[in-house]
Amino acid sequence: MDMVDPFSDEYFMKQALIEAQKAFDADEVPIGAVIVCENKIISRAHNLTERLNDVTAHAEMQAITAAADYLGGKYLGQCTLYVTLEPCVMCAGATMLAHLKGITYGAGDSKKGYARLSESILHKKTKVVPGVLKDECSNLIRAFFQDKRML
Amino acid sequence: MDMVDPFSDEYFMKQALIEAQKAFDADEVPIGAVIVCENKIISRAHNLTERLNDVTAHAEMQAITAAADYLGGKYLGQCTLYVTLEPCVMCAGATMLAHLKGITYGAGDSKKGYARLSESILHKKTKVVPGVLKDECSNLIRAFFQDKRML
Repeated sequence: MDMVDPFSDEYFMKQALIEAQKAFDADEVPIGAVIVCENKIISRAHNLTERLNDVTAHAEMQAITAAADYLGGKYLGQCTLYVTLEPCVMCAGATMLAHLKGITYGAGDSKKGYARLSESILHKKTKVVPGVLKDECSNLIRAFFQDKRML
Repeated sequence: MDMVDPFSDEYFMKQALIEAQKAFDADEVPIGAVIVCENKIISRAHNLTERLNDVTAHAEMQAITAAADYLGGKYLGQCTLYVTLEPCVMCAGATMLAHLKGITYGAGDSKKGYARLSESILHKKTKVVPGVLKDECSNLIRAFFQDKRML
């Protein structure tokens, strides 16, 4: 049986991957995110920078906005962000402002990811778990750019 | 005559201050921004984090989104952001993604500003002009927090 614990990091990352696939299907760079509060998914989002013509429309930013809307409060101290790619500096800065409890990401991003910086820009209480389903996450991104090159 | 050159940094910062005053009047931390393209203001915004219940609703983020909408393209390589306070890490990251030509800010922010980081997180072509009308900008913020403490 290929059961996935519904409260595991892998389970929630699979949900973020479902969001990333929606971005792929919409011809957006395929990044997806969900935000989890007390084992419940309270927001889902995928990258919409092309559709919205807006560099700030990363999956994480939309997920944070939607989670705060759901909770009725702008701080997300009980919430963990699951995202298929290591957040960029903008998104990491947003998680700091939101006081996120955790960030769990899939693929690393050595060029644009926040973790390349020598100083931490996260909230001091934010726990980071990298590399969850990283192969699935990076394969989707790689497939997207391979398709682009073949056009 | 107290004329202000309509294309000077001081002129555009005064416009950002007008936005900041709107935030003040709405009981928001008083930060305002405008984005200028070829000497024309193409977007104006002020901090709306309380009203929108959203930590990402900084003046700069809204100004970037609105400017891209106005131009019909998400890159702002011909644009300069005027903002009354040194941008935070999130907003600086957004200016990087937008390839902003310039950032001109008023008051510095040694605690939360992007410039405290030892590595630059801005786009390599972004030119920064700090300290324009910094006293007016910081006085407005100080007045806001003084009012809060007296409540």
